[in-house]
Amino acid sequence: MKSKLAVVLLSGGMDSCVTTAIARQDHELALLHANYGQKTERRELKAFNDIAQYYLVPPGRRLVVDMHYLGEMGGSSLTDPKLDVPTAGQTHRSAPTATAIPSTYVPFRNTHLLASAVSWAEVLGARKVFIGAVENDNPCYPDCREVYYKAINQLVRVGTRLDSQIVVETPLLHLKKSQIVQKGMALGAPLHLSWSCYKNEDRACGTCQSCRLRLGAFKEAGYIDPVPYEAEIVDRK
Amino acid sequence: MKSKLAVVLLSGGMDSCVTTAIARQDHELALLHANYGQKTERRELKAFNDIAQYYLVPPGRRLVVDMHYLGEMGGSSLTDPKLDVPTAGQTHRSAPTATAIPSTYVPFRNTHLLASAVSWAEVLGARKVFIGAVENDNPCYPDCREVYYKAINQLVRVGTRLDSQIVVETPLLHLKKSQIVQKGMALGAPLHLSWSCYKNEDRACGTCQSCRLRLGAFKEAGYIDPVPYEAEIVDRK
Repeated sequence: MKSKLAVVLLSGGMDSCVTTAIARQDHELALLHANYGQKTERRELKAFNDIAQYYLVPPGRRLVVDMHYLGEMGGSSLTDPKLDVPTAGQTHRSAPTATAIPSTYVPFRNTHLLASAVSWAEVLGARKVFIGAVENDNPCYPDCREVYYKAINQLVRVGTRLDSQIVVETPLLHLKKSQIVQKGMALGAPLHLSWSCYKNEDRACGTCQSCRLRLGAFKEAGYIDPVPYEAEIVDRK
Repeated sequence: MKSKLAVVLLSGGMDSCVTTAIARQDHELALLHANYGQKTERRELKAFNDIAQYYLVPPGRRLVVDMHYLGEMGGSSLTDPKLDVPTAGQTHRSAPTATAIPSTYVPFRNTHLLASAVSWAEVLGARKVFIGAVENDNPCYPDCREVYYKAINQLVRVGTRLDSQIVVETPLLHLKKSQIVQKGMALGAPLHLSWSCYKNEDRACGTCQSCRLRLGAFKEAGYIDPVPYEAEIVDRK
């Protein structure tokens, strides 16, 4: 029985696609997507809509928020046309910094996404917010760590109405990428509709950080990734 | 000497105007403003630009972010054309709720504003973010309480780069509104350029929650508010 409503942050990537499948087990879905000037914005939005359609989520339960101001602030190769998205073996900022955070890091990004999801949950009366953050893949992203999610849940407790009782759930946080693929397969998640590539919009490049993680995960889990790649540069066996 | 940079959230109201004057004592200013579909959006933006100009803040240190998605989510009389902004003696939602939060409350709003200010601070290398939140005026707004600012500072500590060391400052949090006026006067804050009315854009209405608080504060502090009001309905003596 699904009487409860959950807001799920659905970027359209593999992790958020599996998170949606997990949330759907016990909840009605309200799906939220953000455009923030990422280079594959249109392709990610298509993945969001395709997955929302797959789960027959009605228009009133889909929300696309425009966060282009995030891209305008700069500071990330995901959104800044002057910075290249790194490929495998070249994942760090070219200028050395005190930390080893990849150039694709968008400062404090997940807080913007979660603030939107929590505001919408409060308006809708939903008590759960799901986000597909994975600590393992991005150990250097400050906002992908358990300590961050403890802090955001404390903020939500004290920053929303007393009776809203919203909790942020991170079902993938401690999973390996291959376990996420397995989980998605077990739940029938529409991974063929998801999009992870940071660079391309038609056929995935297979070489950016995100493609490498995804391909490695499918391989380790023993599945073929159903998404089209630029065949000549990818070992998918 | 002002070698340090601070990001100040400047809505253009009285409190953020005084907060800007406070931040300016020891910092170079970077001013951030959000448009989120509030009914007096254009007037607030004018106040922001006027105050920024008054302090000679260059264009690269002014950022106006578009958060219309907040208004699109609904749930607040500040942004929803279907809901009236309450006037004095009529400050609560018409339908009873478990809490006495005014209808002007925008769910989790300050988290969106602070997320922007913190992201921008991280990009600019600023170590302070100032916000003019006042607990006293809005005891029912969850995101105007000290416990909320403790939680946001914990989130910022764990959610940004280790070396960013950003702290959110709330210099007005425990002040009475009349003390804010006095502080502003003492620092030469351009209160004549600020705008607080929730309803009007030319002459302040004098009857909305925000106008009443402002008028009462000037009166108690022993000053005349320099902003024009609809004269016939306001006792400014």
